[in-house]
Amino acid sequence: MTDVPSMDALAMLLRRLPGIGPRSAQRISYELLVRKRELMPQLAAALQQAHTVVRFCERCNNLSESSRCGVCRAEHRDRSIVCVVESPADLRAIEDTGVFAGEFFVLMGHLSPLDGIGPEALHIDRLTARLAEADLREVIFATNPTLEGEATAQFLAGLVPNGIIVSRIARGVPVGGELEYVDRGTLGRALHGRRLLDE
Amino acid sequence: MTDVPSMDALAMLLRRLPGIGPRSAQRISYELLVRKRELMPQLAAALQQAHTVVRFCERCNNLSESSRCGVCRAEHRDRSIVCVVESPADLRAIEDTGVFAGEFFVLMGHLSPLDGIGPEALHIDRLTARLAEADLREVIFATNPTLEGEATAQFLAGLVPNGIIVSRIARGVPVGGELEYVDRGTLGRALHGRRLLDE
Ligand SMILES: [Zn+2]
Ligand SMILES: [Zn+2]
Repeated sequence: MTDVPSMDALAMLLRRLPGIGPRSAQRISYELLVRKRELMPQLAAALQQAHTVVRFCERCNNLSESSRCGVCRAEHRDRSIVCVVESPADLRAIEDTGVFAGEFFVLMGHLSPLDGIGPEALHIDRLTARLAEADLREVIFATNPTLEGEATAQFLAGLVPNGIIVSRIARGVPVGGELEYVDRGTLGRALHGRRLLDE
Repeated sequence: MTDVPSMDALAMLLRRLPGIGPRSAQRISYELLVRKRELMPQLAAALQQAHTVVRFCERCNNLSESSRCGVCRAEHRDRSIVCVVESPADLRAIEDTGVFAGEFFVLMGHLSPLDGIGPEALHIDRLTARLAEADLREVIFATNPTLEGEATAQFLAGLVPNGIIVSRIARGVPVGGELEYVDRGTLGRALHGRRLLDE
């Protein structure tokens, strides 16, 4: 604490952002007030603007400035494949690979009974409606490779109508990683999920 | 870049804060928009508020919400000793030690001829006026133990009127540090600046 209450108040809020501890919140506050004052109203305006205009896509829950997001508005996407992810950031990571041309559905979390997050929190009604669309052919579950992500994929797979392909993103050794540094669980799964070389 | 321009704009501004890279700016933007929306107007208001009310102490340049900062307003401080520091954060670090009862003068930087920062940028007029006050007895230079900080202390020491004690914070081995991990320059100076054990 300093004897400048409005700086302390700012630092306390900054600490609630991911990856920012008490030291770094104080450092940012000083930097703003001493050397980057012009950034303060700019940042305040950007926060207000994003808070006002960014909403969730009515079709897939992705972040968007219109009722439907860029992916759902695009005309060339393959509507017969839906990739189910936990968050808009995961959707963005998959979009950035450039290898997926289908659509998405963002759950906004994963099942976590201990935290009271059940199926209803994951927009199951709308997912069910999406899975009932006539031209659907495949659902890819790209939830995180964590216990909760796996359990969520397992549970949701049970909701997919018969006749539709259900897949899960591959787990294995990260491309470019050295085996020596890969954790045991990942390496074990990579061995278990091995493929024939001429496949 | 995403297809949500106001989120991208927010991330671009966040990247200008110290310790926040592109990845972490994007992560913070997603976190705010997906899970911590209520924080956005709060943070915007705190930025505006601090920007509006925090100014620089007219006597010592410290951050303050009044014309004089908490240190300069305090009645029990020893006005006969002035500690010269580079920034309000350095002042705060010294205050937090609880061992200094004098006043401060914040230079707001250090001499850096290559960056065009000459004596005039360091509020030399006001420092000179402060050094001319009748009851002054000692000036402690607590600029950073860097090349620029040392050069700044050397230069400013030349401005101190005759008869006033000029001192520099001690350099040496950090308390609690292991010699093995102390850098060579610091260790060399610590040897050079050794004191008799009964001093
Ligand atoms: Zn969408
Ligand atoms: Zn002051």
